[in-house]
Amino acid sequence: MIIGNDPVLLTPGPTTTSAATRQAMLRDHGPWDAAFNAVMTSLRADLLAIANAGETHVCVPLQGSGTFSVEASIGTLVPKNGKVLVPQNGAYCQRILRICKYLGRNAVELTVPEDKAATGKMIADALDADPAITHVAQVHCETSAGILNPLADIAAECAKRGKGLIIDAMSSFGAIDIDARKIAFDALISASGKCLEGVPGMGFVLARKAVLEKCAANSHSLAMDLYDQWTYMESNGRWRYTPPTHVVAALRAAVDQFKAQGGQPARGARYQANCDALIEGMSRLGFRPFLARAVQAPIIVTFHAPADPRYNFDDFYVRLRDRGYVLYPGKLTKTETFRVGCIGAIDADEMRNMVGAVALALADMGVGQLKPLSAAA
Amino acid sequence: MIIGNDPVLLTPGPTTTSAATRQAMLRDHGPWDAAFNAVMTSLRADLLAIANAGETHVCVPLQGSGTFSVEASIGTLVPKNGKVLVPQNGAYCQRILRICKYLGRNAVELTVPEDKAATGKMIADALDADPAITHVAQVHCETSAGILNPLADIAAECAKRGKGLIIDAMSSFGAIDIDARKIAFDALISASGKCLEGVPGMGFVLARKAVLEKCAANSHSLAMDLYDQWTYMESNGRWRYTPPTHVVAALRAAVDQFKAQGGQPARGARYQANCDALIEGMSRLGFRPFLARAVQAPIIVTFHAPADPRYNFDDFYVRLRDRGYVLYPGKLTKTETFRVGCIGAIDADEMRNMVGAVALALADMGVGQLKPLSAAA
Repeated sequence: MIIGNDPVLLTPGPTTTSAATRQAMLRDHGPWDAAFNAVMTSLRADLLAIANAGETHVCVPLQGSGTFSVEASIGTLVPKNGKVLVPQNGAYCQRILRICKYLGRNAVELTVPEDKAATGKMIADALDADPAITHVAQVHCETSAGILNPLADIAAECAKRGKGLIIDAMSSFGAIDIDARKIAFDALISASGKCLEGVPGMGFVLARKAVLEKCAANSHSLAMDLYDQWTYMESNGRWRYTPPTHVVAALRAAVDQFKAQGGQPARGARYQANCDALIEGMSRLGFRPFLARAVQAPIIVTFHAPADPRYNFDDFYVRLRDRGYVLYPGKLTKTETFRVGCIGAIDADEMRNMVGAVALALADMGVGQLKPLSAAA
Repeated sequence: MIIGNDPVLLTPGPTTTSAATRQAMLRDHGPWDAAFNAVMTSLRADLLAIANAGETHVCVPLQGSGTFSVEASIGTLVPKNGKVLVPQNGAYCQRILRICKYLGRNAVELTVPEDKAATGKMIADALDADPAITHVAQVHCETSAGILNPLADIAAECAKRGKGLIIDAMSSFGAIDIDARKIAFDALISASGKCLEGVPGMGFVLARKAVLEKCAANSHSLAMDLYDQWTYMESNGRWRYTPPTHVVAALRAAVDQFKAQGGQPARGARYQANCDALIEGMSRLGFRPFLARAVQAPIIVTFHAPADPRYNFDDFYVRLRDRGYVLYPGKLTKTETFRVGCIGAIDADEMRNMVGAVALALADMGVGQLKPLSAAA
């Protein structure tokens, strides 16, 4: 690594950002000034455009981490007598269930194995079995294991039955195609520090205008009332409460780079190349991905930990960090794993370098040569 | 102004920050890494130390603007059957009343004129008249007009009666002395982008440990549950949900500078000198402060607008901004005013320069020479 540089963050957000994005934070902005409001207006329009949602949806930014925007969406869009179906194959789905409990919104868990994607049929069956369900809250890419849930199929079943769809697209938006002209949703939530490669500190919700207009009195929270945030911003272009001005400036710079680099198709292709290089390289070292390739999102990859007793994650983590790469612990209930993110301002060569660092770290730990997998796919 | 520089923010936060503070955002941090957790541990200890609260209180940081931390404090610390007295002399007091309404917490408004401070006696009388009140939510510096409410007197009356005190010290903490060994409070709330001169994006709550320990089941919100945030952070040093890593790094740098410059006494003295230079200079131009000096906090000053028909705020604002100073509109209900902040990484010379810019802007607008005030104090 370059001496004095920080390690590359191979985590599912915050990610490693470009120098241009970080340098945008070297300026102070007055959040009530016309110049800053113009930044917000263009940013909101650009975020809608990424999903082709400018005709049907509005973009409501919110301070805080992505979870704040997920909670705000449930609280604002689901009426107090609503009922939410939550297909559950990981920690972020479980978090939505926990949010529903805090907010007193009735929720139904649809349990899906943590190594399997939800399917349209599962959702259809669950909706047909319980007509009281009003909304489906679907995590698009569940980074607990790294699964990509099939959004188009699920959205079609919701639309067919007139159910509202709330998409947690935290770690997919910007990298994986979501087209509002083809996929009907009431709300799509993401955040600044994920695939758009901004810095963390704000989320945003693409909300269907015709739905949000009717949500004036739902929210459990003033700070997280998306209706109030939206109507205030529409009235004067400003945030209701102090925005994270430097985070906004960084996101504006990051989205400029996103557009210049070719938008979602290019971002998705780069992450797929990162993911492919990672899995190929790690497979050559004998590491086995936890998921089948068919359900593997190009966002974060879960690997089985080596069976060698000389391996332990904390040691492995520190050795990799000291060689310039921050990994991520596993989050699965029954299997010992670790995770490697594929997102951020990095390319496939960086992933190959990281695999080289893994090989050296394992050698230093005395972990024996793993048996290379015969079939990496 | 220096060509290419941004205007100085004479607003009550976000403020103008130092270059060192902004440069701290040029690095990416992994929020689960030991290095970042060490930053958080030292930052939380330093924030407690500013209020001499390390023995009695804990510091709980929260993503979002300061309002998020105010709402989180009400939601977490006031039980569902609690009752909150809100002495009200401005917009931030009104916001607390609105939060109580959203959260279903019973609240009583104690109306105070917008140009007067609350007094200990007012609070004592209100508490004695309604024994069902469990908490007082007091804004310390109400920046709507710029009033400093007498915290020690109010805290003494609360303590005498065993009532919980929640202090919104958003725009006073770090500049005005608040000593937990002398002033009893359950919670004190402030934010990164105010008198500590960090960038906006996170708040923090100094919460009395013995009180917070009993608040496990109060919160209306998962994201804003301070008990959950605190216990999680105590268990492993990490934030529950993605922290605004760059904002945290900037606050760490800002607090380093705060300490090196002499801490709260020095910060308060600098702001007082800024405030004095501002009022003196503006008075020479004939501007009349809205508040009596006895209740004027050295944070933001409200001035009566010139009576000249050629004056209008929007024009005045743009002319001042183009000369390098961002002012703030008035927020009073009946009187036309504007506001000038005294906080941020600026000194009294900057305030004098700003007064010079005001004189030139008024001349450009054709606003006649105002009659200088005979008594500035």
